[in-house]
Amino acid sequence: MSRLVMKFGGTSVADIDRIRIVARHVKREVDAGHQVAVVLSAMAGSTNALVELCLTAGALHDVREYDAVVASGEQVTIGLLAIVLQGMGIDARSWLGWQIPIRTDAAHGAARIQDIDATELVERLGRGQVAVIAGFQGLAPDNRIATLGRGGSDTSAVAVAAALGAERCDIYTDVDGVYTTDPRIVSAARRLDRIAFEEMLEMASLGAKVLQVRSVELAMVHGVRTFVRSSFDDPEAPQTGADNQPVGTLICDEDEIVEKQLVTGIAYSKDEAKITLRAVEDRPGIAASIFSPLAAAAVNVDMIVQNISEDGRTTDVTFTVPTSDYDRAMALIEKLKPEVTFESVNGSNDVAKVSVIGIGMRSHAGVAASAFEALASRGINILLITTSEIKISILIEAAFTELAVRTLHSIYDLDKT
Amino acid sequence: MSRLVMKFGGTSVADIDRIRIVARHVKREVDAGHQVAVVLSAMAGSTNALVELCLTAGALHDVREYDAVVASGEQVTIGLLAIVLQGMGIDARSWLGWQIPIRTDAAHGAARIQDIDATELVERLGRGQVAVIAGFQGLAPDNRIATLGRGGSDTSAVAVAAALGAERCDIYTDVDGVYTTDPRIVSAARRLDRIAFEEMLEMASLGAKVLQVRSVELAMVHGVRTFVRSSFDDPEAPQTGADNQPVGTLICDEDEIVEKQLVTGIAYSKDEAKITLRAVEDRPGIAASIFSPLAAAAVNVDMIVQNISEDGRTTDVTFTVPTSDYDRAMALIEKLKPEVTFESVNGSNDVAKVSVIGIGMRSHAGVAASAFEALASRGINILLITTSEIKISILIEAAFTELAVRTLHSIYDLDKT
Repeated sequence: MSRLVMKFGGTSVADIDRIRIVARHVKREVDAGHQVAVVLSAMAGSTNALVELCLTAGALHDVREYDAVVASGEQVTIGLLAIVLQGMGIDARSWLGWQIPIRTDAAHGAARIQDIDATELVERLGRGQVAVIAGFQGLAPDNRIATLGRGGSDTSAVAVAAALGAERCDIYTDVDGVYTTDPRIVSAARRLDRIAFEEMLEMASLGAKVLQVRSVELAMVHGVRTFVRSSFDDPEAPQTGADNQPVGTLICDEDEIVEKQLVTGIAYSKDEAKITLRAVEDRPGIAASIFSPLAAAAVNVDMIVQNISEDGRTTDVTFTVPTSDYDRAMALIEKLKPEVTFESVNGSNDVAKVSVIGIGMRSHAGVAASAFEALASRGINILLITTSEIKISILIEAAFTELAVRTLHSIYDLDKT
Repeated sequence: MSRLVMKFGGTSVADIDRIRIVARHVKREVDAGHQVAVVLSAMAGSTNALVELCLTAGALHDVREYDAVVASGEQVTIGLLAIVLQGMGIDARSWLGWQIPIRTDAAHGAARIQDIDATELVERLGRGQVAVIAGFQGLAPDNRIATLGRGGSDTSAVAVAAALGAERCDIYTDVDGVYTTDPRIVSAARRLDRIAFEEMLEMASLGAKVLQVRSVELAMVHGVRTFVRSSFDDPEAPQTGADNQPVGTLICDEDEIVEKQLVTGIAYSKDEAKITLRAVEDRPGIAASIFSPLAAAAVNVDMIVQNISEDGRTTDVTFTVPTSDYDRAMALIEKLKPEVTFESVNGSNDVAKVSVIGIGMRSHAGVAASAFEALASRGINILLITTSEIKISILIEAAFTELAVRTLHSIYDLDKT
């Protein structure tokens, strides 16, 4: 008898009618002989309303109190699903983070799960009881509730799956899987049947908002096979694909992916700003003098490019930050002046990053070159380039984002056939 | 430095503006040098909404799941008050039932508090931190949340006050104290400055809805001085009475009441039904044969009168039950027929109980007689009478309720001067 974790987000539990549909999905898996643990978010809108109450109560509020208030939303949905399941004749009980417990670190408001004691869950699952678990929350070392940060229920689900040694963690979302790129930009985008953890991590970090980045990291570390599927599917007879399996995308180890593609997907992000320091005095330790103060101020620096100095005395340094950190970063750079000598600083909010992702790149040269050629042929100017083993990221002017994504999507055989 | 418990109900924490007013009441007491623990209900309406969700999810729901869902309301208000207090520069933290813990018995949905571990509360109060505690909830032996039943926050407050050895437990309500009778019926009703625990217990059981009965029992057992006062009072300058004390009613040991009244108050209840069995076979054990089956069916029998048999062979038995138990009780009585011989049974929903309450009655004869005379002079027919040391209860036709209450209120010098 295999164990299965099923995760449903806020829209799926927005009211009792939706919760009844969730219960029917659960019943299907129980009837199929699975031991089932369900992880839930709060009702759609409820977390936002609770956050708003905290902000109204005090803009600079104690994040431990925020956690207590905000975590109450999941307490409601898990109790209600347990009631509905019981009404359908399925043995079920709800579990709050502190009851299991799901232990987190002390970082209230954005805590990380440290450990899950699954002993009692395993024992009850073995007796056929469905565990309905509150996502997004755990017990901090101070014996108080800690939340995992927005979208944390995905992470809860994967962590529970790891602790239970579950065969699979099914994430029910409002899309039916992970696509080769954003279907709103490229109508020919295809749903991927499978994607490797590493690829999904790049896709998630780069703006494909299907899963929270941290949940993918956790799935990769613990080898949790994570299946993204649609919560709008017929609960009794979910749509199946060519292989007779439910429609969705399995995020798994690359060994499970038989037909490896050169490129798996194209991601993009408009949440980028670029800052360039011109004619910086070129001496050892200059990069540290620039980036240490930014790190200390928690400015999230992403791409960094330092050109080779032409005259051997000065160099240009360019880097990117999220748009929300842009003003703060510019102000910090201005303050560096006495210590770091540079001619001028300028920046722009008007940039975007497009990325080509695929584990196949590891063994194939030429992927980058064809990307640059394709963009050049469309007259798109490349501002910055960074690469990793399985990814090429290119910074361009924001206005060209859609054109760049469409161009790259077409040259790597990703378009629907 | 004395310890004070302050309890606020749902209307007092209905939104952030009201919570800010609560915080100002708390600040006044902190500034006055008290160590303060605050006990809160959920926002007005929120508990009803959560109960409704449970009922919609399943009419016959698991009460442990109900507890998890419904207890989430207090989690919100305590966090918010802690945030507001901190914003005013007052050190404060929220406490959920399971964090203290407030241990209850296993009776989910209507649990009783067994024990409160006040060690950490006492330590933190001593450091000047305000404890903001969730009312209405505790931790059951199964490590799950248990609620105390509706109105349970009063009981939480008194139990916390007992555990802390608090000087006083202030219950902030929408009235400014306990009155000699319902002011909607008798405009001359007076607010009592003090009332003895035993008297308040009778007043509370008999329908004066200021405090939950169980909280008064608990206050009596542990000798917790409980002060009922208005939440609409000016937070910075509460209204004071002749003795320069805040306006309200202190529920205390009778030793603290210097000027003892013969009669303290008149209570009434329209939630009564009467059932009479005529010509019941009069033999030993007949009362048990009637009332044991009713008790087994959890029918709440209140007054019982068995007349002396005229012929030595048959007797009449009359008793009262809450109107909600009336139909069930009548059906049960019909089923007794083979075992208990009686001529006929009849009943009525159309009755009310008025009660005269006062510890002074213990040492004064004639209180009952004057009540009967006064009612007779108004043409009010007495259906049943029961008495205790400090109370006379009289069952009458419901139509005469207001007249009876006004009549009794006037003959014992209770009218405002």
